[in-house]
Amino acid sequence: MFDVQQLTFGQYDAVLNVLSFALVSMIFASFFMLASLGRVQQRYRSSLVISATVTGIAAYHYWRIFDSFKEAYAEGTQFNEAYRYVDWILTVPLLLVETVAVLALAKSVSRSLLVRLVPASALMIILGYPGEITNEVLPKMVWGALSTIPFIYILYILFVELGKSLARQPEGVAKEVQGLRLTLLATWGFYPIAYLFPVMGFEGELAFVFRQYGYSIADILAKAVFGLIIYKIARLKSFADDPEFAKAEGH
Amino acid sequence: MFDVQQLTFGQYDAVLNVLSFALVSMIFASFFMLASLGRVQQRYRSSLVISATVTGIAAYHYWRIFDSFKEAYAEGTQFNEAYRYVDWILTVPLLLVETVAVLALAKSVSRSLLVRLVPASALMIILGYPGEITNEVLPKMVWGALSTIPFIYILYILFVELGKSLARQPEGVAKEVQGLRLTLLATWGFYPIAYLFPVMGFEGELAFVFRQYGYSIADILAKAVFGLIIYKIARLKSFADDPEFAKAEGH
Repeated sequence: MFDVQQLTFGQYDAVLNVLSFALVSMIFASFFMLASLGRVQQRYRSSLVISATVTGIAAYHYWRIFDSFKEAYAEGTQFNEAYRYVDWILTVPLLLVETVAVLALAKSVSRSLLVRLVPASALMIILGYPGEITNEVLPKMVWGALSTIPFIYILYILFVELGKSLARQPEGVAKEVQGLRLTLLATWGFYPIAYLFPVMGFEGELAFVFRQYGYSIADILAKAVFGLIIYKIARLKSFADDPEFAKAEGH
Repeated sequence: MFDVQQLTFGQYDAVLNVLSFALVSMIFASFFMLASLGRVQQRYRSSLVISATVTGIAAYHYWRIFDSFKEAYAEGTQFNEAYRYVDWILTVPLLLVETVAVLALAKSVSRSLLVRLVPASALMIILGYPGEITNEVLPKMVWGALSTIPFIYILYILFVELGKSLARQPEGVAKEVQGLRLTLLATWGFYPIAYLFPVMGFEGELAFVFRQYGYSIADILAKAVFGLIIYKIARLKSFADDPEFAKAEGH
């Protein structure tokens, strides 16, 4: 395991600052979502509440990661990165639930999407974990490949199956959903890259700092910024559903 | 780097108190804004929520700065001032978003202002940071000068471009917007002065104490007091929009 006490003071500081940045982004994404519930119509509030829950869970885990990293550097204890996996097993399925919820599709369509997306996303995280904690190349590659299968299946559902349901969405929504999917693809795509750092021979202090920055920024985009796109979709759909509401909101 | 253990106990206490003062101002500015959402009409609530988010983010960072300063004095660890930059990169663009949001301008006008203001403000903070962490005069001056370009551009947009949109605002609002802009100019103007302290030969304990007071008071004015002016504008506009609402609010 990498010993964080090898980091220079500047590297330590840089990691601490990005962890704090992720933490504050998550807390106030939740805060903003909850304070903005009244800015969308009732039927879209579930997706905002789920988004606030996701960033709230992430804020908790960044708090733990921040403290664990600080303590590991000061006292030589082990830096606990398993918090990230505990976080993902909870938040990744929820992100897919909030995505489907905000579209307010027909009940049978939502259900059919979720019974495939949620188990696939849980499987993706679970299969990645044994590969993350090993330093040996072969098991890392095998678990990584296994974890990629549900990931590709999720992309198939989101880009192909979900696409069929977008035709009847109001103006502007299809474009925002495209933004959601690309954010998801770009940010989720970072995780397997960081996962493969050791296989690519990228190890030591700099790889550690780079991985912490990559994970933190990917998490901010995949959860907090993702939540803001969800909010924007919920607003657009609220305005399209009810012209009175749009007028009161100054739209 | 300045070692905070050089401070006398009186200086230490004075800094700790001003950091606590900033912290409590930020927390209760957020609290007041959220509790007052119902005191303005729907279309102005987004700007109040954004203002509460800004002071909330600032409260988090003052909490971290307070703890870091206390720990540095007690245990000789490094005082981490980078929290200020992490704060500004998030809050300064948001302050401009809340300013434009409260005016409830036509959608195309708001959009055109924000696509210029938000990137310019982020650029201003990012260009300032390399100059902040160096102690050498030349790079400090160069980064400072580069950071001033987007700052002047922001002032141009706020004082010239935004001015054109103020003619149709209800009575009293133009005066309040003038108050907003002057608060912004006066408080943002302090940051480059503190930035240039080392260049002006103003260093050591007293410069450190003075800088902490300056940053803290500038932050309180630029975020908490600024938010109260936003609230006042939202009230005035709510009354002008709807005489029934004005009457119910005892205006």
